[in-house]
Amino acid sequence: MALINKLAVIGVGLIGGSLARVLREKGAVSRVVGIGRGEANLRRGVELGVLDGYCLDAREGVAGADLVFVATPVCSIPAVVAEIAPYLAPGCVVTDGGSVKEFVVDACEPLMPEGTFFVGGHPIAGTEHSGVEASFAELYQGKRCIVTPTKRTDPAALAKVVELWQIAGSSVPLMDPAQHDRVVAAISHLPHMVAYSLVNAVDGYDRPGGDLLSFSAGGFRDFTRIASSDPVMWRDIALTNRDAILETMDFFSGYLERLRTLVETGDGGGLESFFKNSKQKRDAIL
Amino acid sequence: MALINKLAVIGVGLIGGSLARVLREKGAVSRVVGIGRGEANLRRGVELGVLDGYCLDAREGVAGADLVFVATPVCSIPAVVAEIAPYLAPGCVVTDGGSVKEFVVDACEPLMPEGTFFVGGHPIAGTEHSGVEASFAELYQGKRCIVTPTKRTDPAALAKVVELWQIAGSSVPLMDPAQHDRVVAAISHLPHMVAYSLVNAVDGYDRPGGDLLSFSAGGFRDFTRIASSDPVMWRDIALTNRDAILETMDFFSGYLERLRTLVETGDGGGLESFFKNSKQKRDAIL
Repeated sequence: MALINKLAVIGVGLIGGSLARVLREKGAVSRVVGIGRGEANLRRGVELGVLDGYCLDAREGVAGADLVFVATPVCSIPAVVAEIAPYLAPGCVVTDGGSVKEFVVDACEPLMPEGTFFVGGHPIAGTEHSGVEASFAELYQGKRCIVTPTKRTDPAALAKVVELWQIAGSSVPLMDPAQHDRVVAAISHLPHMVAYSLVNAVDGYDRPGGDLLSFSAGGFRDFTRIASSDPVMWRDIALTNRDAILETMDFFSGYLERLRTLVETGDGGGLESFFKNSKQKRDAIL
Repeated sequence: MALINKLAVIGVGLIGGSLARVLREKGAVSRVVGIGRGEANLRRGVELGVLDGYCLDAREGVAGADLVFVATPVCSIPAVVAEIAPYLAPGCVVTDGGSVKEFVVDACEPLMPEGTFFVGGHPIAGTEHSGVEASFAELYQGKRCIVTPTKRTDPAALAKVVELWQIAGSSVPLMDPAQHDRVVAAISHLPHMVAYSLVNAVDGYDRPGGDLLSFSAGGFRDFTRIASSDPVMWRDIALTNRDAILETMDFFSGYLERLRTLVETGDGGGLESFFKNSKQKRDAIL
């Protein structure tokens, strides 16, 4: 018997579509129903074999599902869960793929009717492309999906969510939601804030040589790739993980200030060891 | 007749080796002599066909050369030029590949004997690899080499340097040295300062989830690739382009501060337009 009988995916894009693909491919799900507002996209999901069917009404779509995966932008997740909660089948597990967890989990846990369960999750995977067309079964292979149980989390529901991400090919570290938010603030949210600021600063600089950005080479392009990420998704992240992002931004500013002092004072030894430490740490994650 | 009869390359690594390769390949040079301290590297340059011969003594190596290319670290360039200046043949043009130009040009121009000429240059090209083994004739193809004449620059010497970089496949914008330094501070030096600071900050953060960097995904790795650059080279750049780097760091900090305020106040509209402007500018340079 498949792990999941009916899977409902709300938001069939890169994240939702890829999970549906891999679970089908591994025989871990009997039937996948896509839910969303864009009918063309959902129809395409059926054509591509990602979905067995689709539904524009979430309340209808989740009926009889034993697992619901909410893969919509972070800010919308609590509203989506509030809408579907009364229509969930007994025993249904709802999980999500949002990049911020305390906001989501705090809001969603109290919405769940008796005998249904919410478990927060965050697959650390993605590409710069989006939409069901961009989805592929290997997206989660060799990646991590952080799952964020709380004291209220049902152990069987947690085990089910862990198992489905393992089937998708990911390792599944567990963290509490606040701890997750601080980790991703440092390794993902802060770099995005820095990259967005850098591109805006270089663009806004007074252009001594005409159009500055036209002089940029490969290094700048690679360095700023993440500044091309979706502005709405990142607005939501900045709004919902505010405290951890502010903390890491301030922490980063302290290092930048230290480096500024080394540059200002012409401290060759200090500069070299600042750069060397960074290179060593960076090379270690290659 | 070849554009250059004898080319002397001081510092035969990626930059010097690649220029020698392409000029030979295009028939723009009759003879290439490599100069450096590492004899094994120079011998390898001869084996690879990059050099016709080599010389451990720079004064001897430049004798009879009509073009000298100094491709050593920025801080060393004035000392190298001071050493070779008395031994240059009449009409000889000396140029360099340093990443900072005002420091180099201000120091080197006064060192040149009557009838010999210095022209500063900076090819905006490179890879993360170094050494003559890593050199290849196509390195400069489709790139830019900024050449930085001053009021004292000899027009014929300038034309020769421009022509050799064009033969190498690059377009050759002209800027004065200070203008060059501000342009590269913004598009290259600032991003490096930011990347080095970011990796150090994330490494130094108090690791709520254990080893933070182990959670980083592809985005973080790409974003921080430039933080693996050579610490000594970047120490030299930070020491010699201090003012322009401080100016761009302060400019960047202003943008980071603006973003911090948007995050702190939860200004959704402001966040979205900050991210959107960055995305548009970044997408335009793809």
